[in-house]
Amino acid sequence: MEKELEAYLHEHIPLSKAMGVSVEKADPEQVILWAPFAPNINHKQTVFGGSLHAMATLACWGLVYIHLKLEEASAQIVITKSEVAYIAPVSGDFRAECLRPADAEWQRFSKMLHLKGKARLNLTATVHQAGHLCVDYRATFAAIK
Amino acid sequence: MEKELEAYLHEHIPLSKAMGVSVEKADPEQVILWAPFAPNINHKQTVFGGSLHAMATLACWGLVYIHLKLEEASAQIVITKSEVAYIAPVSGDFRAECLRPADAEWQRFSKMLHLKGKARLNLTATVHQAGHLCVDYRATFAAIK
Repeated sequence: MEKELEAYLHEHIPLSKAMGVSVEKADPEQVILWAPFAPNINHKQTVFGGSLHAMATLACWGLVYIHLKLEEASAQIVITKSEVAYIAPVSGDFRAECLRPADAEWQRFSKMLHLKGKARLNLTATVHQAGHLCVDYRATFAAIK
Repeated sequence: MEKELEAYLHEHIPLSKAMGVSVEKADPEQVILWAPFAPNINHKQTVFGGSLHAMATLACWGLVYIHLKLEEASAQIVITKSEVAYIAPVSGDFRAECLRPADAEWQRFSKMLHLKGKARLNLTATVHQAGHLCVDYRATFAAIK
């Protein structure tokens, strides 16, 4: 699934290619993205806050993409809101990770999408550099059939 | 100031160049950035949420940059948190605008920066397409001497 998700992102979201995003892990339990430092730097020689937010968004979006694919549900996924805490600066290559939420949350989401043709899902992601937590990210995604 | 800010962004934040960001207005009252649709699209042929957040962040960052320059204060500006509501999809070229906050807020910020060598500032920005509000953005920035 890693190569497929990476190809999809690079083809459909050109900014992911400009950022140098690669998919390290992509399964129903978690999505881990990696990005190099150089294309994502800012004036302070740390990673631009916009790149950090974008990476977390892509990780969450990827997890929903995988689940909808497994359930053979053809829905559009859009972000409706996000909240980010920048905990520590990132000064090198970095990773964004989105973990699968609790079973009950997924089941509610799947059921609503099936019944109503639309549903919302809250997801969290983190951005790490060399194992250190740098960004805490929360977002709500809407899936629409 | 427009050309200067644009050159600074493109040189120091390469993602702003990849996004095609240009500076339409840059003065102490407001910063307006413009970006073309094509490099910022997503899988749905609307603008990627990460690009929208990045544009709003750059507009706010630009406004602080201008003020610090006018006050001849050499401080680093970093984002510490952000909150975004995606109100409507963006399906073409778009603009991000950051307005100067109330005088009292700026005076508090300037005074703290002068006295303590660091200060925080809350800013808001909006993203528009053809005059329609699409994104509401709030963020806190820290300036450190």
